Amino acid sequence: MDRNIRRMAAFFADATCRLRPHFKAHKTPAIARRQLVAGSCSGLTCATVSEAEIAAEVCDDILIANEVVDPNKCARVAALARRVRMTVAVDSIEGLEAVGRAAATAGATVGVVVDVNVGQMRCGVSPGGDVLRLARRVAATGGVELRGVMGYEGHVVSVPSRAEREAQGRAAMEGLVDSARMLRADGLPCELVSAGGTGTYDISGRVPGVTEIQAGSYVLMDTDYGGLDLPFEQAFWVMGTVISRPTATRVVADCGHKSTTKDHGLPRVRGLQGASVTSLNDEHATIAVPPACGLQIGARVFLIPSHTDPTINLHDVFYVLDGETVVDVWRISARGYPEHRGAVDSLLDPS
Amino acid sequence: MDRNIRRMAAFFADATCRLRPHFKAHKTPAIARRQLVAGSCSGLTCATVSEAEIAAEVCDDILIANEVVDPNKCARVAALARRVRMTVAVDSIEGLEAVGRAAATAGATVGVVVDVNVGQMRCGVSPGGDVLRLARRVAATGGVELRGVMGYEGHVVSVPSRAEREAQGRAAMEGLVDSARMLRADGLPCELVSAGGTGTYDISGRVPGVTEIQAGSYVLMDTDYGGLDLPFEQAFWVMGTVISRPTATRVVADCGHKSTTKDHGLPRVRGLQGASVTSLNDEHATIAVPPACGLQIGARVFLIPSHTDPTINLHDVFYVLDGETVVDVWRISARGYPEHRGAVDSLLDPS
Repeated sequence: MDRNIRRMAAFFADATCRLRPHFKAHKTPAIARRQLVAGSCSGLTCATVSEAEIAAEVCDDILIANEVVDPNKCARVAALARRVRMTVAVDSIEGLEAVGRAAATAGATVGVVVDVNVGQMRCGVSPGGDVLRLARRVAATGGVELRGVMGYEGHVVSVPSRAEREAQGRAAMEGLVDSARMLRADGLPCELVSAGGTGTYDISGRVPGVTEIQAGSYVLMDTDYGGLDLPFEQAFWVMGTVISRPTATRVVADCGHKSTTKDHGLPRVRGLQGASVTSLNDEHATIAVPPACGLQIGARVFLIPSHTDPTINLHDVFYVLDGETVVDVWRISARGYPEHRGAVDSLLDPS
Repeated sequence: MDRNIRRMAAFFADATCRLRPHFKAHKTPAIARRQLVAGSCSGLTCATVSEAEIAAEVCDDILIANEVVDPNKCARVAALARRVRMTVAVDSIEGLEAVGRAAATAGATVGVVVDVNVGQMRCGVSPGGDVLRLARRVAATGGVELRGVMGYEGHVVSVPSRAEREAQGRAAMEGLVDSARMLRADGLPCELVSAGGTGTYDISGRVPGVTEIQAGSYVLMDTDYGGLDLPFEQAFWVMGTVISRPTATRVVADCGHKSTTKDHGLPRVRGLQGASVTSLNDEHATIAVPPACGLQIGARVFLIPSHTDPTINLHDVFYVLDGETVVDVWRISARGYPEHRGAVDSLLDPS
């Protein structure tokens, strides 16, 4: 993990672009602190308001790279904006007005980037005129401050071929950078042009005009990104115990998909030649092993997750290894919905 | 939920077989208490030791329907066995000896059922002679007490056709009931013949010789079991908010697969004619809607999860509805790995 953090920081040390590590990947303040200390960062990226509330413990410049429209959530963003520099994405007038109202009520200023659909076909307005129209509206709205544009090329980050990924990545960034140019030509501020992920950090991160990259998975990695030509190492695993060996070629470990998600495919087994996970149930990993495999009942197995973010979201802590020694335990403070945990605590203890 | 609990209890009120509700489905003591109060129960089923530690708050007869072999976990089972009646599954001599050692050390008696592979091809020994051999070994091991056999027909519970499910379910139970008969013929105790799930409760639950059914999902249901001919109603949903409406036929809500798993397929949208989830990312549900759909930015959507257990495991609380009114908040105490949360607390506060 330390090597991954250093490699990514070194890339951005040489670039005009900054890194805004995505907190959603690990939800762990202890890791975010290390990413920020390594340098080359503009702040942190978050996906949710509750992540931002926890990230604000370690960082004073936070982008929620996502639309926030619920009045209660907007009020929480506005409350945060009184303590740290907060920026949120908008892609609609309704969303913009919800943020503006909450900010005005709190006497805060919330930064806004216009979310541009760069081809992922999820949220975001189309590049060009639509971005300009919404940006003008931002500039005319109280409580908010236009800070630029963002566009996540989520449809590109996992493309296996580098040549193809570069071509698609640059094409995606064109509409985003053009939109930024239109804003500036119109006299509007456009400090942030925020984009990218682990699969495109050195593609989008080299496109002139992109000011920051929102990569997250690079810090711990998974089999999905591990299949690409990236200079990052697998740095976290899920440990299980072999609880059953019904046949010479089948063992079952107690780490199922409540510990390691399978939304990007089945996990792999670390360091066991010829072993592969054949099915993953709630609490069981069934593993095919070669007949001569020495894996006995009670042995530990380490799974390499296929998808960083949702796997970590299943856990409350990291056990931190230096070599083979556990040297610390880090709380994954922002896992799940911390605000709801608080809701119960306040009900149980109304004081 | 109350109706589901009542219907299941009514089925078992008329049966010779008992219900042992599976705590892993919801991990929530407030729900387990209601299942037990409804009657017809022999105790609770758990999948993990940490679930059992929390289930023991509300129940004094717990079956961990899974192998436990790690010495620390066996010690925790033995500690529990000093307070409540504990039973665990074994399918190997190594596993049996690990449980026996821990029980002897703690001065406790841990009950044991032999886990029989009834066709799921996961854990378990083959029906017949192998079961008898391991059962004799249990009877000769200190610290443990032979209580019978279990076999989970996990390969049958979701078979869509009832006729096919009945045929396969009865075939699976044959080997289990035969094994129980062999134990008794050998003079061994066999109080428990534990099997079944939500999809087979009224199939395995009617097979003479089966003494209890481990159903869990029936209490809250999902789209997977909802597709079968079962008398249970969908009783939980994941609420999200529409944060983006980029086109007339596409909306995006802030409930992705960190809130609703997709291991049994994409969730459905409740009460919205013609709407369907087309993709589910970490924090986004992209929903195709008819052009005339009135779903606006800020509107609430309710997703029907495809798989009860892992979806609930993502959340810390249930908001409890009576009609449309929130009347309580229940803690999902056993979600994740409660024992690790404790590990951090003790590090942070060594007192």
